[in-house]
Amino acid sequence: MASPTRAECESLDARDPLARIVNEFAPGEPGWLYYDANSIGAMPMSAHRALGRLAEEWRRLRRRGWSDADWLDGPTRLGNKLAPVLGAEPGSVVVCDSTSINLYKALRMALALRPEREKIIAEDGAFPTDLYIAGAAARDHMAGGTLVRVDDAKALGDSIDADTAVVLVTHTDYRTSYRHDLAALVTRAHHHDTLVVCDASHSAGAVEVGLAAAGVDLAVGCGYKYLCGGPGAPAWLYVAPRHQAHAESVIPGWMGHADPMAMLPEYEPAPGPKRHLAGTPPVAGNTLMETALDLWKDLDPQAAFAKHGALGDALINTIEDLPKPRPMLAAPRDPARRGGFVSFRHPEAHAYVRALERAKIVASYRAPDIVRFGLSPLYHRYIDIWTLGDRLRTLQMERTES
Amino acid sequence: MASPTRAECESLDARDPLARIVNEFAPGEPGWLYYDANSIGAMPMSAHRALGRLAEEWRRLRRRGWSDADWLDGPTRLGNKLAPVLGAEPGSVVVCDSTSINLYKALRMALALRPEREKIIAEDGAFPTDLYIAGAAARDHMAGGTLVRVDDAKALGDSIDADTAVVLVTHTDYRTSYRHDLAALVTRAHHHDTLVVCDASHSAGAVEVGLAAAGVDLAVGCGYKYLCGGPGAPAWLYVAPRHQAHAESVIPGWMGHADPMAMLPEYEPAPGPKRHLAGTPPVAGNTLMETALDLWKDLDPQAAFAKHGALGDALINTIEDLPKPRPMLAAPRDPARRGGFVSFRHPEAHAYVRALERAKIVASYRAPDIVRFGLSPLYHRYIDIWTLGDRLRTLQMERTES
Repeated sequence: MASPTRAECESLDARDPLARIVNEFAPGEPGWLYYDANSIGAMPMSAHRALGRLAEEWRRLRRRGWSDADWLDGPTRLGNKLAPVLGAEPGSVVVCDSTSINLYKALRMALALRPEREKIIAEDGAFPTDLYIAGAAARDHMAGGTLVRVDDAKALGDSIDADTAVVLVTHTDYRTSYRHDLAALVTRAHHHDTLVVCDASHSAGAVEVGLAAAGVDLAVGCGYKYLCGGPGAPAWLYVAPRHQAHAESVIPGWMGHADPMAMLPEYEPAPGPKRHLAGTPPVAGNTLMETALDLWKDLDPQAAFAKHGALGDALINTIEDLPKPRPMLAAPRDPARRGGFVSFRHPEAHAYVRALERAKIVASYRAPDIVRFGLSPLYHRYIDIWTLGDRLRTLQMERTES
Repeated sequence: MASPTRAECESLDARDPLARIVNEFAPGEPGWLYYDANSIGAMPMSAHRALGRLAEEWRRLRRRGWSDADWLDGPTRLGNKLAPVLGAEPGSVVVCDSTSINLYKALRMALALRPEREKIIAEDGAFPTDLYIAGAAARDHMAGGTLVRVDDAKALGDSIDADTAVVLVTHTDYRTSYRHDLAALVTRAHHHDTLVVCDASHSAGAVEVGLAAAGVDLAVGCGYKYLCGGPGAPAWLYVAPRHQAHAESVIPGWMGHADPMAMLPEYEPAPGPKRHLAGTPPVAGNTLMETALDLWKDLDPQAAFAKHGALGDALINTIEDLPKPRPMLAAPRDPARRGGFVSFRHPEAHAYVRALERAKIVASYRAPDIVRFGLSPLYHRYIDIWTLGDRLRTLQMERTES
């Protein structure tokens, strides 16, 4: 397909139902093009004001902020704002802790729901932390668990058997951007009564995750990439409603207690999703995260995901229209199988990303040969793809001439 | 002892080496007296500016903030700033996660260092979360652990035996403010080769913790009380240098990896204290926490602790000089045995705290009969104690007359 022309991009932006959202984000440095949504999303304009309000609440309310400024309910309130973006049921998501901590909790919960089974299965290409944490959770499993690493997505489905407690899936591959078909994986897993735990960090806020529709059992993800919750934003944890009453946190801190302030000598998990909380909510992080989640208030997530797919298609066409030698597509061509970014292979990927940076284009490198362009349906415009293409053509001409 | 006069308080303030620090805090609401340092510390004036700088860094640097704004090194940089306040060695403290999560990690690490032993011992009166988490850590112990709850501080020392892996001690009792003698407890524990894990949430930033001098093995605490790190501030974790090389986190997230960005397939713990990290650092929370820790830069912690003790003595003398019926001291009279707050018993403690609130005095209530006054050596002045006494006398007269 031909790369879109400037006029086509302008026309697409004019018809974009999400166009107004772009203006809700603070502009970056003049002249720079940012394609690092897969590392850290842009800052909503409202973040500044929200931080000012937080400081004022802290100064003025002190302890009363927990009730009067609703700090205490942040984890579930934010979870409910996030749920539609994940295709999750109300009351199934809490915003808390980090992705690593939440994944440990999710895997331990899943293992406890299948106490007689031994195996966690995961792909060798899963996000490394997912594998580290899965290994630790397996070691801590009462039955003495084992993490079995398999070669690829196909093997992940094929390896499930009656001794498999959990399939852990990194929803979107952090190098190729291959996005798993969760519904198909869940069908195969549930056939063996195996649970599916998903890390959707590289999907959430950019593409469809569809946790409820796919039947995923537990899921986690970060808040700082496409969800734009700020650097080191609190992460999220999804527990399917059918498991809520049976799934107990292995780290039973007071915020997960049915009555935290009663200071009771014995732990009793809260009846709802709060049972998955441990410590005191990080109010500053939640403040930024809520600012970002509020951008979705009047948005149709499906429209956002459709725009993201179209942006990705335009980006692929633009890169593939560059004169050779050019980066080769590594991501799936089908937008339904792509995650939040589009990735390409380049024999000198690291040097290429540095050259992009000199041309004021922020992309990201992953060893050995991957160049990633993160796309946000919220703040990227079609014209940004045209500008990127234009700058890449210039860059390539300079490189060819030099 | 007689309660200090106004002139005496003014004279003490004039000679207070920490007097300048008071002005580094944002004033609360006009006319209010805040004694809730044990719930949430006051806001440093610099917090507002620090949050503005964070937003600007996020907008401008995006991903480069991890290096150019030193976000990534936050946990160890803040840990090193906190260490002198805890009496801890450089490189022994990280700021991360919540107290609950850190306590789980600390207890599991301690149990792994004593794999053949079965017991965790803790006081029945420990902070409830400490007990919940200890129960969970014991269940997850490879040997099949048991949490043994004992009656009181004396029993805690007396119960240690050769099968005790860990003594968990809540440094300061959240009701009576009784502060354990850590050095004495550690001596008894180490005699049996038992490890001591300490939760110093109600001590750190107010009174001496002295982790290194006491020989404590692992410790945790929150950042939002006397350390003034803001609502839900990140917590801290101390691991004695002699254990660092042997203690591995049971939640091995990428930030604890020796080379997080290399995306290696196998986990290898970082050589230093970073090995205790799991997920991505919460930058907004760390920003506020660092602002608060920077207040200690030119302070002598010992001078701060001495002032805190003197403030507590003045408060006790002031309350005990009130006409009867008056609250009865519940906290130790010896400042070396008191934690961050001074507590009193009152037959109608809940109603009393509400009456204080109507008189614009913020204290806190704990069932069934405890009234707590949190004191910060950083932002409380001696004259605040006199003003409190004056207002309490007025309040008492009104109550007697009505």
